[in-house]
Formats: sequence, structure tokens, C-alpha cells
Amino acid sequence: MPIRKPVLNPPFNIIRVSHVEFGVRDFAAARAFYVDCLGLLVSGQTGDALYLRGVEERNHHSIVLRKDTGSQAHALGFKLASEEDLDRAGFWFARAGLPTSFPEVPYQGRTLRTQDTLGMPLEFYFRMDSSERMLQKYAAHRGARIQRIDHVNCFTPDVQASHDFYRDLGFRTTEYTETEDPQPRLWAVWMHRKGNVHDIAFTNGRGPRLHHIGVWTAGPLDILHLCDVMATSGYLSNMERGPGRHGISNAFFLYVRDPDGHRVELFTSDYLTVDPDLEPIGWSLRDPQRQTLWGQPAPKSWFEEGSPFAGVALREPALEAQPIVAR
Amino acid sequence: MPIRKPVLNPPFNIIRVSHVEFGVRDFAAARAFYVDCLGLLVSGQTGDALYLRGVEERNHHSIVLRKDTGSQAHALGFKLASEEDLDRAGFWFARAGLPTSFPEVPYQGRTLRTQDTLGMPLEFYFRMDSSERMLQKYAAHRGARIQRIDHVNCFTPDVQASHDFYRDLGFRTTEYTETEDPQPRLWAVWMHRKGNVHDIAFTNGRGPRLHHIGVWTAGPLDILHLCDVMATSGYLSNMERGPGRHGISNAFFLYVRDPDGHRVELFTSDYLTVDPDLEPIGWSLRDPQRQTLWGQPAPKSWFEEGSPFAGVALREPALEAQPIVAR
Amino acid sequence: MPIRKPVLNPPFNIIRVSHVEFGVRDFAAARAFYVDCLGLLVSGQTGDALYLRGVEERNHHSIVLRKDTGSQAHALGFKLASEEDLDRAGFWFARAGLPTSFPEVPYQGRTLRTQDTLGMPLEFYFRMDSSERMLQKYAAHRGARIQRIDHVNCFTPDVQASHDFYRDLGFRTTEYTETEDPQPRLWAVWMHRKGNVHDIAFTNGRGPRLHHIGVWTAGPLDILHLCDVMATSGYLSNMERGPGRHGISNAFFLYVRDPDGHRVELFTSDYLTVDPDLEPIGWSLRDPQRQTLWGQPAPKSWFEEGSPFAGVALREPALEAQPIVAR
Amino acid sequence: MPIRKPVLNPPFNIIRVSHVEFGVRDFAAARAFYVDCLGLLVSGQTGDALYLRGVEERNHHSIVLRKDTGSQAHALGFKLASEEDLDRAGFWFARAGLPTSFPEVPYQGRTLRTQDTLGMPLEFYFRMDSSERMLQKYAAHRGARIQRIDHVNCFTPDVQASHDFYRDLGFRTTEYTETEDPQPRLWAVWMHRKGNVHDIAFTNGRGPRLHHIGVWTAGPLDILHLCDVMATSGYLSNMERGPGRHGISNAFFLYVRDPDGHRVELFTSDYLTVDPDLEPIGWSLRDPQRQTLWGQPAPKSWFEEGSPFAGVALREPALEAQPIVAR
Repeated sequence: MPIRKPVLNPPFNIIRVSHVEFGVRDFAAARAFYVDCLGLLVSGQTGDALYLRGVEERNHHSIVLRKDTGSQAHALGFKLASEEDLDRAGFWFARAGLPTSFPEVPYQGRTLRTQDTLGMPLEFYFRMDSSERMLQKYAAHRGARIQRIDHVNCFTPDVQASHDFYRDLGFRTTEYTETEDPQPRLWAVWMHRKGNVHDIAFTNGRGPRLHHIGVWTAGPLDILHLCDVMATSGYLSNMERGPGRHGISNAFFLYVRDPDGHRVELFTSDYLTVDPDLEPIGWSLRDPQRQTLWGQPAPKSWFEEGSPFAGVALREPALEAQPIVAR
Repeated sequence: MPIRKPVLNPPFNIIRVSHVEFGVRDFAAARAFYVDCLGLLVSGQTGDALYLRGVEERNHHSIVLRKDTGSQAHALGFKLASEEDLDRAGFWFARAGLPTSFPEVPYQGRTLRTQDTLGMPLEFYFRMDSSERMLQKYAAHRGARIQRIDHVNCFTPDVQASHDFYRDLGFRTTEYTETEDPQPRLWAVWMHRKGNVHDIAFTNGRGPRLHHIGVWTAGPLDILHLCDVMATSGYLSNMERGPGRHGISNAFFLYVRDPDGHRVELFTSDYLTVDPDLEPIGWSLRDPQRQTLWGQPAPKSWFEEGSPFAGVALREPALEAQPIVAR
Repeated sequence: MPIRKPVLNPPFNIIRVSHVEFGVRDFAAARAFYVDCLGLLVSGQTGDALYLRGVEERNHHSIVLRKDTGSQAHALGFKLASEEDLDRAGFWFARAGLPTSFPEVPYQGRTLRTQDTLGMPLEFYFRMDSSERMLQKYAAHRGARIQRIDHVNCFTPDVQASHDFYRDLGFRTTEYTETEDPQPRLWAVWMHRKGNVHDIAFTNGRGPRLHHIGVWTAGPLDILHLCDVMATSGYLSNMERGPGRHGISNAFFLYVRDPDGHRVELFTSDYLTVDPDLEPIGWSLRDPQRQTLWGQPAPKSWFEEGSPFAGVALREPALEAQPIVAR
Repeated sequence: MPIRKPVLNPPFNIIRVSHVEFGVRDFAAARAFYVDCLGLLVSGQTGDALYLRGVEERNHHSIVLRKDTGSQAHALGFKLASEEDLDRAGFWFARAGLPTSFPEVPYQGRTLRTQDTLGMPLEFYFRMDSSERMLQKYAAHRGARIQRIDHVNCFTPDVQASHDFYRDLGFRTTEYTETEDPQPRLWAVWMHRKGNVHDIAFTNGRGPRLHHIGVWTAGPLDILHLCDVMATSGYLSNMERGPGRHGISNAFFLYVRDPDGHRVELFTSDYLTVDPDLEPIGWSLRDPQRQTLWGQPAPKSWFEEGSPFAGVALREPALEAQPIVAR
């Protein structure tokens, strides 16, 4: 089995995925989508950036929209437990021969900027400014009443290599997809730090690219309401897949595309994964219920399109296995 | 049994309860409550009146808020099937010795104004101007996403007399409460025209007064959300009773008071009652599950307070039976 | 416009659609599907028939499963207001030159058996034996906690003729689909008696055949739960379409096929239609949101397959317009 | 402020609260309550013990019901990260002068039995036998479809002492209640290991006693359904408090009592707490929304009754502050 045992005492303590930054070409259109339609809260705005968060988040932001000439994603942000962990992370990446720098970043202070072995840009910090707690200001909840960021999902040209890298950083695998070859090969993997199904997932494909960011809602009816809102307010063509139930993760989901094509998953109802003796759940690439428990295959765009990372070269995947795709 | 058989061919065809008008002393406060908090849609506004409706209503309005010096309710409005029914209704009330007039009323045209034998003011019309259909403009749904008016509930000093009067008009009884006397007496009754548990209900008490107007939501989560909103936006003391499940009607409910003290019930999940052979369901006044299936008694205010009708004298009820009241 | 004005004083008073009878080849398989999976309650069983109802129904049954050698539907059952209406219905059908008989039918007594002008078998009665009220025996609710029958939907080779026939019987049109021809032609129509979107609907196609029976649930989560149950207990291939939101009717829906291929729609969240001045809502056959507000087209089987009526000849439709079909 | 800073590198790694054991006098009655009514799954049964779990739990059990002559609770069980942590825990408790033993316990192997400084019995282990994963066997979900154990809540005669003890073990405080004295004193505290509001909470009162065990449901409608089931199947008097929304934790809740008086909280919708820089939220003992966001106070029994631990002496609390109690 290509899933390696978890590292229970990792070299530095990553708490969770924390934020992403999207380049957007039309600022007003992006704001209308994320704030007016999805219902994210605005934490702040500068000349070229809009900082957003979900209703339970006290971290200053989890999504940054930045005025850009192209539709690309920037570094994936992870929160560390302490400044000591930040130093340890710096040593670790430097020793691994990966580029490191420590800029001061607004709202989050001293930050490690680096990348993984496949070139995916990463950003680590240990303390963020806090925003007002809005969880119990219910009158301000809008749209899908998004609670928080849940995960990022990335295309990688080598799922096994990505799995191995993040496993060494302490990410633990909860579910995975493999081919039906005599020697099964990893096609996708879900890995977590914070105690539910994932903070980061990898899918086989041209990469590294960001497949989607997942945001958490309190329940399925918030997602159905968003379907109704999008379908009747000019966002019908932004609804890419779902709503449905994933076999993997058991989550109820909806995938939507923002005006720049960045993909956002509305996600709820997965399960607790803090037990170290929890066995990863394996799925066959040929099992249609893996994708959608209720059987509907994902559309072609879902397997092919994603957000490139700024300045990062893409590689084709070595593995050519084909998932089940809706015609 | 004090419930009389339904009249299947009534003297004129009442379709349903249609609207109420509330006197409000602070217009801005009333608007904030009904529109910003409850989420009703504004159909129109004149100098002294605000016209409201639920998201599925194409009738111009179901609630009118009118600037007033006192906190009183005005006529209860019912929709008739046709202009012939309006004429028949006029003859019927006149023959019954009740006062009738036929004013032209904005948005609903020729209207019969009259009263029942206990003095409760009534208004009948047959066609109302229509408002834009908002059911599928989901982005405009707010608060409890109220769908439509469902019913009115009134205090009457003589439940049997009220029951008999409305039964003659074709209202059919679905549920009722009676005392446990050897000769049980009616304490409350639920009667409908439109095919669910009620268009109008009567409860024993000083009257005639309007106990509450009931508005329909798509499900219990819309009501729970309203609880969260009210409790955290300055309306905590306006939450009078619930949320809970009624034994009678099986509805999930919440009772709130507007800034003038008028009571509104958020209501959902009752059942279909169109069958003529449906037997009314009787409850004992001493059964706590009658009020709340889950056991919680209603507060004292719920049994005692209501909106007087403008200019209508009140009588004490003959029946002195006591319901179960929360201490 | 091909929709004719409603007949407000019909020749006899039809209350609502009441029941259907399905021929089933494997009795145990049918029972497992309807009772163990969908959660319908068993009202009674004879040697060759199983009588089912939803949790709020006090009518003895709304679905009859009868042991049969073929997978066909039998008469569609409608409830009338009174025995006088039964006699009037008999005269009306006889005068229309349609075959009539008055058998005694178990649980519902004197019954008119007849057919419409397209040959679709109908059955009218005015009083059914009652079953125990289970609405407030919540511990017995299972599966999708189906509340009641809501409607039947039929293929007809001539939608205009079907519409005209049922309009004359007092059915009122709430929504319809028409072609985009210079002279638009009716492609589908939704008609009601009981006060929501429909008791009966007609779709253009080889017929008369029963397209599906619709059953009502209290909310969307009961339907999502049924998806989860079916997908993980051997009924994945019985899930034909959905879950989703219809543009027409605004209902949240799921279509499933029983082991004999009969189609059942789980249906909730439409709207009140009792107002006589409610204008029918028209949709274009080319509008994908007509079918599914969220855009997903229905599969080919949904447009082509249905339950034949026992002994009834089929005709091809004259109208060859094509709806949008999932590839 | 009496809340001390979290210990981010505790002496041994506690993953989460894992299980409780309840003494029950009538085995059949207890099984009917937990399995038939609440819907917990049976993992196994021995002569005198019934092992239960929620639908997502792969740990063998989270509740043990043991035939007993009295209605008492036994040790609270916590899962550790590894066998090394078990050894470290043994050393730590021994060095603290607390009694330790290492019995072999069915399904969980080598186990540390000890107690805290207030005498509350504790049990630590690092690996439990696994049960079949039932999360995606939806047809087996019953009652409230309980997902998993969430927390335990205990009466303690000295909240500050309990807080200090568990803080040293690495539990982090998310919310707390304090008196309004010039020198505020702790009245209650919520502390977690697994990343949501709590694994364990302490309330001021005669103790140590177990106030309740909290179990997690997927959403509020599962809890409302349980209310309906309990109220109509003989468990009305077992419903003690709720349903409602807690101010503290933001959870939607219902408190029920089992046939032996042990209290179970149905609990859902709190929030993620993994961030080390998350500030604890303080509440005043006089704030009614602390208990219930919607204002309803808890009944007297809720403040006074709890399950004693077998063989553990009780002390009265030093702090005599009074919460708001329903009359």
C-alpha cells in the first residue's frame, strides 16, 4: 500500500490550513461573488486587496482577493503553533534545499515563504491579527453563511511524491484513491492536521495547480440555499458540480467557480479524525461512488481546470489513469 | 360533542384568510422589525401605511402596518372566489342583521366591511392587485424567509358561538380543545377554508381580540435562524414562546411580539385537511402536550395579551376553565 | 395562449388525487422498496395486495401494490366531496360517451370506474375507511418519512386535449410549458384541485402512461437522507434523477424507480395556489431552468419511460418538440 | 483573570475524551432508551455490559452500560496518542501522588486507572479495537443518528482547581463563566483537546459528579426529530431542557435523562478551536444568554442533579454564587 504511516512527532507543528490568495481581474465582480452571493464577511480592504473570512473565524482572514492581471493563485497559507515552530520550519525547508525567506506580511507578521518539492508555493506564520467574532451576530450572516475555511485541494503531477512530502510534515492521510493495477498507484489523497478529513488534498493532474479551496457551512440547507440564490441571480453558469454527497469524506458538497474561474467548494458533514489509530480508507479509481455517493459523475472541467500558481511551471502527470467523467 | 358538522355548500365561497392591518406607533421601529428582522418583503408604502408580503405571495400584501396612535388591529381580511360571492356575502351579512358597507379599498377594489356576531371586524374582497413573484428570486430572501400568511387566531368570549358562526360560513373544524366537564365545553377551535389546519382559530378569553397572525416558513431551520437573529440583534425580549412543536396542528412554531406588542407566529409543518370526511381531533384542556408536544407550558402573557380591534368593546368569557400556564 | 380559464363551478367536486395501484411482479422486493427503504406505512395486506400510506394520511391508503404478471399501473383514484358528486360524475361521464361502472371497491365502497377521452383509466369515490393517525407517532417514521401522496404525472399524446378535459372537470392550471413556435403549443401542464401546484400533470409523450406518482416529504433533508440510504443499501441504480430544485413548481425533488420500474417522485416545498386570480406561469421548452432550476438536465429515461395502464392502447404524440436531455 | 495560559507541550498527549461507563439498574429499559430511542449502535454485549457507539465511530465504543445496583458513573475514559504517552501519564500521576494502576481492559488493552486531585476517576489508554464503519450504512441510522461522543461535563466543588489541573494536562480553555465579584471567580469552564469547544467542562456544584455526557449529531433537525420521538413514545418526562441554542459554545442542544437519571446532551454546531492564539470567551454568571442564547433559563434539576462516581466522596462547593434558574 502506497500510504505511509503517519509521523506523530513532526519536525514542526502545523495547526491547519489558514488562507489562500486569489488573483482577480475584476475587483467589483469578485466582491459581488464572494461577499454578496457567497456571504463571506469583509475583514478589510486596501487599494488592491480584499480580505475575507467566514462567520466563525477570528483570524483576520482566510481568503485574500488581490487585483491582478491574470487568474492565478498565490501561496497557500498554513498556521503554526508558535514562533519556535516557525524557526524550525525555516531550518527544515532550508535543509531540504528549498528556497526560504522571512518577509513581514500584513496582519500575520513574520512569515516563512517557501515551496514544496513540486514547486507549490507555501507560506507559514504563527499568529494573525484577530477580527471581531461574528458567529453570534446572526443578523450579519448572509448567503451560505460560510463558517470557515476548511481545506485546499491541489493538482499534482505526482500524488505519491506530494503525499510523501506532506506526510513528513505531519499530515495524516484519512482517505485515498488508487488505481486497480496489480501494483496500485495513488491517484488522490486526503491529508489533515486539524482533525477532520483534510487540510490539503492532492489529485493526479497537470500541476502543481490549485484545484479548489473548500469552505465549511453549518449544514446542507445552507448549500441548497446557495444553489437557489446562484441559479436565480446570474450565477447559473458558475455552478460546476453538485450539490451531492462525496463517497470520500462523506461530505455534502457544491462546487462553484468565481468570476475568474477559481473554484470554491461548499463543504459540510465530514467526520472527526483525531485518533492516531484511525485507518485510512481506500477507494478504487473505478468506483463511481468514490466521487459521488449518489452516483453522478463529475464534469470534464472538474478534472481538467484549476488555478495555476503565479510563476510556477507545470508538469504533466506520469500517471495516465482515467477517472469516470460525465459525458 | 360541541363541534358541528361542516357546511359543504356555504352561502358564499371564502377562499382563505388574506391579510390583517396593524396599528403601529413607531413606523421606523415596525419596519425594522417586520422587514429587516423577520424578512418580509415591502410591496409598497404610502404616507401612513407599509404593505408587506411573504416571498411566495403574489397578492399585493398580507400585512399592512398603519401609523396609529394606539396598538390595535383593524379588520381581518378574507379573499372570496368571485364578485358574485362578494354580493352573496353582502346579502348574507345584511340578512343576519350585521352592519355592511362596500367601500373601495386600495389594491383590492370593492370590499365588504362587516363584523361577526361578537363584533369582530371583517373585510371581504375577491381580487387583489398582484405583486412581482419573488419565490424564485432567492437572493432577496431574508430573515425567516417567510413564505405567506397562514392564519389568524382570536380571543373570543364565547368559543362555541364563534365556532357556530364561522361553521355556517363554511369553515371546517380540524382540531379543538374542550374542558373535562361531564358536559365538555369548547375552549378553543381551529377552522380552515384553504386546506391546512386553519385559516382562523378561536381561544377562550376576553374578546374579541386578535391573539396573533400566523405566517408560514418553509421549514424549522428558518425559524431557528430567526431565534438566533432576534436573540443577538436586540429582540431577545420580543421572543415570547418557543420554538417548539404544537400538539394541536403538529406545527413547529415560534411566537414573537412586534414593537407595538402585536403577536406574530412563525409556523410550519402542519398537514393537509381537504378531505370532507376528516374527523376533527379533540384535545383535553388538561393535556400539556396539546399546547406543546414536548411539554413546555406557554407563559402567562400568551394567555392574557392580545391586540384589541379598533373601536370594538370587549367582553369577559363566560367559561372560566384554566389552561396549564408556565409559572 | 393555449391555457383556458379555470372552471370555478365544475360539474362535480373533485377534492384531490387520492391513490394509485401498481402491478408488481416480486411482492417481497416491492415491499422492501416501499416500506423498508422509502418508509411508507403498511395499512393492510391481503393475499395479493399491499396497502400503503404516508405518515399523515388518515385515508386507508394512497398506494396499492398488487401482485401482477406485468409492470403496469391501474386506475388513478380521485376523491369526491360527497355521494351526490359521485352521481353527478357518473352522469357527466356517461353523457360524454365514456364507459362507466359502479363497482363496490374494498375500503372505499361505491366507486365510479371510467376513463378520460384519451383512454386513461380513472376511479372516483367519496369516502374511504380511515387508518390510525400516525403523524404524531414519530417513533414509527422511517426512511424519507413520507407524509402523503401529492400528485400523479402522466404522458399524454395530446397535452392540449388532456388539459381541456381536466380543465372542464375543475382542475386549475398553475404552470405550463409551451413550444417557442409562432403559435406556441402546450408541451406540459400542471393542474390542481387541492390548493398546491398540482394533483395531476401531463407531459407530451407516448401515452396515456403514468410517468410518476409524487409523494410529499416535510423538507429537503428527508430527501437527502433517502439519497444516502438508497445509495448505500443496494438501490443506487434506482436513483434516476436529482436531488434538485424544479424551476416549475419550485419543488425540491428526487426521482426513483421501484423494482418494477414504476417511478416515484419525492417532492416538497411548492406553494399555495388556492387563489382563483392566480395567473398560470408559463415556461419555454428551451429553458433549462424549467426542468431544474440549478441547470442539470434530466436523463433520457426520464423523458421516455413510464408505466403503461393495463389494457390501454398507446398513441404517439403529434407534437415532436424536443426538451433538453442529458447526454 | 482566573484562566491560565494553555500548556502547548503537555507532559503526555491526550487526544480526546473517549468513553464513559454508566451503571444501570434495568438493562432492558436502558437498552430501549439508548438504542431504540436515541439510536446508538450496539458494538457488543456481554453478560452485564452493553457497548454502544455513534454512527461515525470506529473506536469499539463510547458508552458502556453496566448492570449495577445503583445509578452511578464510572471512570471517564481518555484516548492517548501512543503507548509512550501512556507510560508518561503513569509517571506523571504517580509523581503527583495520585493512585495509579495498569489493568488490562477489554477492547482497549493496557490502561492507566487513576484520578484527579478532586477524586474524579480517570482512565487512559492508547488503542481501542475497531468496530465496523457505519457512517455510510445510512439505512442503519436511527433516532437522532448520533455521530459520536463529544464531551463530558462535571460538577466540581472547586472549578479553579479543576481548571488548573486539566490545564496542566494540556486542556485548553475556550469559554468560561465567572462571577461579577470585584475579584471574579470561576463558576464554569470549557476545555478541549480535540479542536472544538470542549472535551471536558466543569461547573460549580457538589462534586465531583458527572453532570452529563454530550453526543454529537449532524444538525439541529436530528435533535428536533428526537424531541418528537421522545414526546410521543413514553419519554416525555425524560426531556429535561431544550431544545435551544447555548450562548456558550454556540451549540444547539437538548438535555435528556436516561431511565437511571444519567443525563445525555444532544449537541451540534459549535466551532473549530485548534488555533493556539484563540482567546477564551468570558461570560458573566448573571447573563441569561450565557445559558440559552434565546433566553430560557435551565430548570432547577439541571443545576442540582448529576451522576455520582462509584465510591467517590462528595464535597460542597466553596462558591455559593447562584445562576439564573427557571422557577
